[in-house]
Amino acid sequence: MIPIDDSPLVRDGKVLILAYDHGLEHGPVDFTDVPESANPERTFEAATHPAVTTVAVQKGIAEAYYPSYEDDVNLLMKLNGTSNLWMGEPDSAVNCSVEYAYEVGADAVGFTLYGGSNHEIEMAEEFRAVQEEARAYELPVVMWSYPRGQGLKNDTSETTIAYAARLALELGADVAKVKYPGSKEGMEHAVRMAGKTKVVMSGGSKTTDREFLESVKAVMDAGGKGLAVGRNVWQREDPTRILDALERVIYEGASVDAALEE
Amino acid sequence: MIPIDDSPLVRDGKVLILAYDHGLEHGPVDFTDVPESANPERTFEAATHPAVTTVAVQKGIAEAYYPSYEDDVNLLMKLNGTSNLWMGEPDSAVNCSVEYAYEVGADAVGFTLYGGSNHEIEMAEEFRAVQEEARAYELPVVMWSYPRGQGLKNDTSETTIAYAARLALELGADVAKVKYPGSKEGMEHAVRMAGKTKVVMSGGSKTTDREFLESVKAVMDAGGKGLAVGRNVWQREDPTRILDALERVIYEGASVDAALEE
Amino acid sequence: MIPIDDSPLVRDGKVLILAYDHGLEHGPVDFTDVPESANPERTFEAATHPAVTTVAVQKGIAEAYYPSYEDDVNLLMKLNGTSNLWMGEPDSAVNCSVEYAYEVGADAVGFTLYGGSNHEIEMAEEFRAVQEEARAYELPVVMWSYPRGQGLKNDTSETTIAYAARLALELGADVAKVKYPGSKEGMEHAVRMAGKTKVVMSGGSKTTDREFLESVKAVMDAGGKGLAVGRNVWQREDPTRILDALERVIYEGASVDAALEE
Amino acid sequence: MIPIDDSPLVRDGKVLILAYDHGLEHGPVDFTDVPESANPERTFEAATHPAVTTVAVQKGIAEAYYPSYEDDVNLLMKLNGTSNLWMGEPDSAVNCSVEYAYEVGADAVGFTLYGGSNHEIEMAEEFRAVQEEARAYELPVVMWSYPRGQGLKNDTSETTIAYAARLALELGADVAKVKYPGSKEGMEHAVRMAGKTKVVMSGGSKTTDREFLESVKAVMDAGGKGLAVGRNVWQREDPTRILDALERVIYEGASVDAALEE
Amino acid sequence: MIPIDDSPLVRDGKVLILAYDHGLEHGPVDFTDVPESANPERTFEAATHPAVTTVAVQKGIAEAYYPSYEDDVNLLMKLNGTSNLWMGEPDSAVNCSVEYAYEVGADAVGFTLYGGSNHEIEMAEEFRAVQEEARAYELPVVMWSYPRGQGLKNDTSETTIAYAARLALELGADVAKVKYPGSKEGMEHAVRMAGKTKVVMSGGSKTTDREFLESVKAVMDAGGKGLAVGRNVWQREDPTRILDALERVIYEGASVDAALEE
Repeated sequence: MIPIDDSPLVRDGKVLILAYDHGLEHGPVDFTDVPESANPERTFEAATHPAVTTVAVQKGIAEAYYPSYEDDVNLLMKLNGTSNLWMGEPDSAVNCSVEYAYEVGADAVGFTLYGGSNHEIEMAEEFRAVQEEARAYELPVVMWSYPRGQGLKNDTSETTIAYAARLALELGADVAKVKYPGSKEGMEHAVRMAGKTKVVMSGGSKTTDREFLESVKAVMDAGGKGLAVGRNVWQREDPTRILDALERVIYEGASVDAALEE
Repeated sequence: MIPIDDSPLVRDGKVLILAYDHGLEHGPVDFTDVPESANPERTFEAATHPAVTTVAVQKGIAEAYYPSYEDDVNLLMKLNGTSNLWMGEPDSAVNCSVEYAYEVGADAVGFTLYGGSNHEIEMAEEFRAVQEEARAYELPVVMWSYPRGQGLKNDTSETTIAYAARLALELGADVAKVKYPGSKEGMEHAVRMAGKTKVVMSGGSKTTDREFLESVKAVMDAGGKGLAVGRNVWQREDPTRILDALERVIYEGASVDAALEE
Repeated sequence: MIPIDDSPLVRDGKVLILAYDHGLEHGPVDFTDVPESANPERTFEAATHPAVTTVAVQKGIAEAYYPSYEDDVNLLMKLNGTSNLWMGEPDSAVNCSVEYAYEVGADAVGFTLYGGSNHEIEMAEEFRAVQEEARAYELPVVMWSYPRGQGLKNDTSETTIAYAARLALELGADVAKVKYPGSKEGMEHAVRMAGKTKVVMSGGSKTTDREFLESVKAVMDAGGKGLAVGRNVWQREDPTRILDALERVIYEGASVDAALEE
Repeated sequence: MIPIDDSPLVRDGKVLILAYDHGLEHGPVDFTDVPESANPERTFEAATHPAVTTVAVQKGIAEAYYPSYEDDVNLLMKLNGTSNLWMGEPDSAVNCSVEYAYEVGADAVGFTLYGGSNHEIEMAEEFRAVQEEARAYELPVVMWSYPRGQGLKNDTSETTIAYAARLALELGADVAKVKYPGSKEGMEHAVRMAGKTKVVMSGGSKTTDREFLESVKAVMDAGGKGLAVGRNVWQREDPTRILDALERVIYEGASVDAALEE
Repeated sequence: MIPIDDSPLVRDGKVLILAYDHGLEHGPVDFTDVPESANPERTFEAATHPAVTTVAVQKGIAEAYYPSYEDDVNLLMKLNGTSNLWMGEPDSAVNCSVEYAYEVGADAVGFTLYGGSNHEIEMAEEFRAVQEEARAYELPVVMWSYPRGQGLKNDTSETTIAYAARLALELGADVAKVKYPGSKEGMEHAVRMAGKTKVVMSGGSKTTDREFLESVKAVMDAGGKGLAVGRNVWQREDPTRILDALERVIYEGASVDAALEE
């Protein structure tokens, strides 16, 4: 962890990453309900919302679409990722070098670590290289810290999420993206374990406005610093509406009721 | 994806790759019916047809035969490939470096990715290196995006082809070569998923003129940008005739009937 | 082994490493009894005690917390380590390069070798690279020498500990951190096998003051040069009290009774 | 394939490689019948015969013996090879770098590829590096193209040999060394598949003068460019006699009868 | 093989390596009978005997003890080695780079190759790198050529030892250290297979003076160039006495009786 509050990834100490790497990780199926969501431009448009501090995409999407948005959107290059056609133990291909991310204009980089996978050690060593190179380019590093694989009985237990948050701190991530452990207390535990590393919640699959915002509110109340969200934004017919609400909850400390009223 | 419309790989926004790496991938058996097709010169001659934007070959063929055709033919160096003697999970050896492809005079490079193979991650990481180096040499990158291997139940289903096209976009290919999903609608879905990455159909095994041209026509109507074809050209007694027809369908928007009439 | 008596890792020929990498190796569970121990600052504060020659942490902890303590604490960067979510044969990811450790301000580096693991050879080769690079930066090298894995029947037998100590000498570590073999005689054997390499005892899980100090005293009497201790310091309510006692036993040669009396 | 007719490997468009790497590949057993054949000097002496265009040896033999013969013999450095103590799938260690081969004075390099082995892809990638580096040093590349391993039912069938020859062309070898497929027709097929890459026959185990020369004659009549022979030369009491005959058959187009009469 | 007769490894064309890497390879158990043998200084003292051309140790021992003896002893850095805690197929970690060995003052380097192991190919490739780098530093290369592992029925048969010796020649070692095949005739066979590479006998486990010297005598009579001996020297109460006898047998051609009389 190094100080990143002055970086484009952060606004008032908070982080809202609009994640859009699902075309790689899940495939076209995620675009079924809202077909126009397959078009990256729709998400880049959403990312111009002031609540969003960065959009997180894979290299190919960044190359093709970011040039049209570089004045209005900050870019988080997700450096690894794998299709769900992959049948092996959880693992993630490194699809972009830090140097190339920098050339494309990235303001931050993201990296998945599957703690507990049979590929954990290989991934941790890839993370080391990425993290140290990111330091050289002064790019903040976000770890998608997702324990998963052989031997993981419950990857959203409070214990597992707390360990995930700690891994991010110990290994040198500036931001830890973890799943919601199901309660504010669970999130407080994770936040405490992460020390100076900022913890943000992974948005997960689409749910109702209220349910989603309540988890976000619990995260903020627990000391979390924000959110990395994808489907709960761009799988909605109107991404702007939920982003407005997120702005109120995350940056203005509004209650869920207040945020929903707008 | 970066803009490639001004590159030799593209003519009027369309692409017609004459693929001739079957001697490696399938072996001499593909040359049985038209014995003279074993001679690369015959395919290079065919590639002088204006419909063809590049010929795709492996390094050894390029070294030996391209010097005689470099004024009349554009070269796409296929960088990986493997014999069908290989019995393991789908994988492909990297047989040529980008730098060497450039020295031999390549105008573009091609790379196979077997999504879903147990070697997917290794191949994706090889692709990353190739793609980024190709950017440095300003060579367009074509991905042979062929989901295949353990766990793939149907590698020509509409769902699989759409995922294949999306992988090409997400990972940074400029052109996605995918199999024909069996219908114009299937191809439309793939084209939509590929975003700004151009989608071309893989020609597949030899069929009748009409059947072949109808699939090409469906691809073009679906928003596809062309074709990478091998056997359906050089396994014909007269490659020029079918190339004339392809020129009409791909570049002039002719109907299959009109194209066949000539 | 090279002479390290003039380095910050050593005081009067003795070594007391305050180890705090348990958040990675064991996870948050180690912080349960003393919740504030999860905060690295508490351990850095403890490390300002004159008995402590260095604090041993992973890269992320060093980046985030060491800058506030660099005038008062010496840093030993632990270069490898792995979560206990890992289910494979004992192995350890290299999480920090020597060069980066040096940039962060490390005064020494630490590396775990699991002799007897199916990853022993890979780890030994990683150690080679680390050790030789550490020589270039003039950083002392501490080996956590822990035989473990397939075929190890008893990893705290006198025989195994003696072999562990010898491995550190043979492979070029300046300090060997080994487990307590259960007796002064066992430690003498290990010390003899380590030759010019200093042997320090691994503190192990928390026990009573007397039991802990008696093992330390036995180590010193056996010719050991000190201690690498974590839980037996920071899992205590008052780390300072036990550090005071350690100072007396390690540097002043006091008896356990005398040390406990203070 | 690049033009190599002006290289020392070639005489009048033909190639005769005297192979002597059997001490590595087969071990001392190959020297049993003619004990003095264990001495590399005997083979280097034989290689001074004008029929021989290069002697093919491993690095160690080249280092030790080539300096005494460098004025009279051309050197083909065999870059990979493995003992027959190896029990795994067919594979071959890279025992010499191209750079070092060049320093020792090599005029050409040789490399084995076991198509169809579970190590085929790894070997093909090693070949790529070797081939491209050889281009930089302007050293012709000979591929020992030997399909072998899991799934190969018959490694001397006409089909397999033809594929082997094609692999050499596709991957960029200048000369393909293949086994004799048993007939002139089989060899013609292989030669046709190899295109501009020269095909030479692998001499195989020792046989009678007539039988051996007849296979050589069939190869030449089939369009083959020569021979890589070991045991059929140096396992004979008088290597010169058979080399005289080979000279007549290969370079002068003599019949077997005529060649044997001398 | 390159000429090494002028190097410190050789005296009058003969070689006597005093090996002391048993603390790594076998562990402390080898020091049980003569406890002071655990102290490397005792072996370095023995190595000042004029019969000894080099002492062979691992990096850590060299770093710690060689500086005090560099005026009186020549150093052979053993570059690989592994503890016997390792349960896998025979393999050996590369524990020291050639460059670092050179910096520490090595006069020669040593490397183990387990022909026939499932790691043979990996080890041969590591040997290649080491051998070529050693050439750059002008350091003679000694191969510990020990066929071992899956499929080896008898690793001290005459046939196996002869193959081991040949491997050293083929792969470019200057000296081959092989086990004693049990007879002078067996050693003659090995020596003949090794060609210009010098063959030395591996001393093996401790035996009586007479038995040991008789095997040495047989080696010298068979054309061997000397000995690499460890336990038969430093496991004796008086290393000097046996070294005196070795001097007579190896350098002066004395009979065993004559050597024992002194």
